[in-house]
Amino acid sequence: MFTPSFIIDTITVLGTAAFALSAVLAAHEKHGDIFTILVLGTITAVGGGTIRDTLLDVPVFWAQELSYVYIACFSAAVGFFFYPLLNAKWINKIYLYIDAFAIAMFSIQGTEKAFSLGFGLPVGPIILGVITAVGGGIIRDVLLQRPSLLLTKELYAIPVALGCTVHALTLTYAPSFSEVSAILASCLVIYLRHLSIQSNLMVPNWAILKSN
Amino acid sequence: MFTPSFIIDTITVLGTAAFALSAVLAAHEKHGDIFTILVLGTITAVGGGTIRDTLLDVPVFWAQELSYVYIACFSAAVGFFFYPLLNAKWINKIYLYIDAFAIAMFSIQGTEKAFSLGFGLPVGPIILGVITAVGGGIIRDVLLQRPSLLLTKELYAIPVALGCTVHALTLTYAPSFSEVSAILASCLVIYLRHLSIQSNLMVPNWAILKSN
Amino acid sequence: MFTPSFIIDTITVLGTAAFALSAVLAAHEKHGDIFTILVLGTITAVGGGTIRDTLLDVPVFWAQELSYVYIACFSAAVGFFFYPLLNAKWINKIYLYIDAFAIAMFSIQGTEKAFSLGFGLPVGPIILGVITAVGGGIIRDVLLQRPSLLLTKELYAIPVALGCTVHALTLTYAPSFSEVSAILASCLVIYLRHLSIQSNLMVPNWAILKSN
Repeated sequence: MFTPSFIIDTITVLGTAAFALSAVLAAHEKHGDIFTILVLGTITAVGGGTIRDTLLDVPVFWAQELSYVYIACFSAAVGFFFYPLLNAKWINKIYLYIDAFAIAMFSIQGTEKAFSLGFGLPVGPIILGVITAVGGGIIRDVLLQRPSLLLTKELYAIPVALGCTVHALTLTYAPSFSEVSAILASCLVIYLRHLSIQSNLMVPNWAILKSN
Repeated sequence: MFTPSFIIDTITVLGTAAFALSAVLAAHEKHGDIFTILVLGTITAVGGGTIRDTLLDVPVFWAQELSYVYIACFSAAVGFFFYPLLNAKWINKIYLYIDAFAIAMFSIQGTEKAFSLGFGLPVGPIILGVITAVGGGIIRDVLLQRPSLLLTKELYAIPVALGCTVHALTLTYAPSFSEVSAILASCLVIYLRHLSIQSNLMVPNWAILKSN
Repeated sequence: MFTPSFIIDTITVLGTAAFALSAVLAAHEKHGDIFTILVLGTITAVGGGTIRDTLLDVPVFWAQELSYVYIACFSAAVGFFFYPLLNAKWINKIYLYIDAFAIAMFSIQGTEKAFSLGFGLPVGPIILGVITAVGGGIIRDVLLQRPSLLLTKELYAIPVALGCTVHALTLTYAPSFSEVSAILASCLVIYLRHLSIQSNLMVPNWAILKSN
């Protein structure tokens, strides 16, 4: 039962749902209506991959496989009607971990897709991996007029970038280890997110541009 | 004289003009200059269709047919120089109705273009129809740092989505009625916008995500 | 040594660096971290050309020639670590002039690329030239929640548009003078920027939409 493809499918479904839920949480303070929340949920879930596919000049993935859209809409609708649950502390924590698994997997997938198409080697796949994982969230923040996730001091985009870099390096220099590296790079992303969620690990102070 | 193609051309011209004028109205509070207003007017008028064509991977429509750009620029310029008129109540109401006709027609056109290219059937055409009609306005709002039209409580995107859904359903299940459906779906969009403009009909309260 | 291609390469490198530095300056007030600044620097430097290439439906230029990305990252990193220098008045002035050279050259390049592909003649090349030069800066401003450069009263986008127009007109009506025109149009952009930087020349008052 727990074949790799089953696990990947499960993470994809849960991850897409988690991305859509992040839009519900974010739209909450702006009093979005149900339609807006479906739209924002879907954009958040598929936005990063859409930018990636546009840059790669391949057909957008969700038009080939609409389940991404259905999952995002369904999940956003559930989030809308059961909003108070989403705010319960333990559910919120589960949500954060699902999101961590999701960005881990989407960044690896993005890196691999770009690599297999030979896009801008060697660093193109890293860039597209990051875009796949965080692009949707950035569009969500722009549409909701929130400070972009790029500007948070939480560790979010940096773990993604590290994971993509590890995986892209392996694909380039040790392609026979690509499966191991996909798992290890995902674990790296998840572990760093875990540190950020659990121990409030933040971007170190020296790495922040300060006024003088 | 009132052939279907004449009517469609007329609505296209007036609709493109209305979209560009919406940018003049929106840019007003930010004291945009004439060049900015031409740019924003054009982006608002052709932005939605541009995203649609990028996702469909077909040449952008305004590069094939520059009149859209000319109409948008001309209309934005007129709006700039005769701004006080735009604010006159009865002109503003005419403007709102032209805009209603425009979003009705553009959403049907977007739905049809995506359907004829077999993009992400069955829901892909609905999504692209909505993007065609409201995409330009969303970019306008983002560039002007205004709350996105997605977040208004006015009925704007929802009528569009309903119209696109009706038309996409007909195209799929009763293609021989596609012309009737194009007209009926447009009327639905216009009627709902009319209710919103005239009777201040809004998104019902249960459909809005509330803080608790 | 000072062959045309050497000069063009030099301006390209310095211009890409200047665009990336503009992101450091802009991100400063938001306390971005080093990773955010690398990302924003790169987006600012290559964003305009990326939109252009997407609209032209050609492979994105930086995936073909990654030095743009490397230069942008390197320059953003230097800007991060030597930030106080960037604020020194004379360095800031040098930066403004390099930026002026950069937008001049990128707008001419964008116009030429669109023209050579026959995109939306005759005004398509002007539009893409402007997008190439200011698109990255606009994305930067949106991501940082700053008022878009489109809304500044400084002369920035207007010189670019004039330069692109001059060059596109020459390409269309007097193609044998295209090299002369590339230089003259660049000089026009730089001269107008110079007036804006040195003499605080602004958009004239009649050209600004006022409340009444």
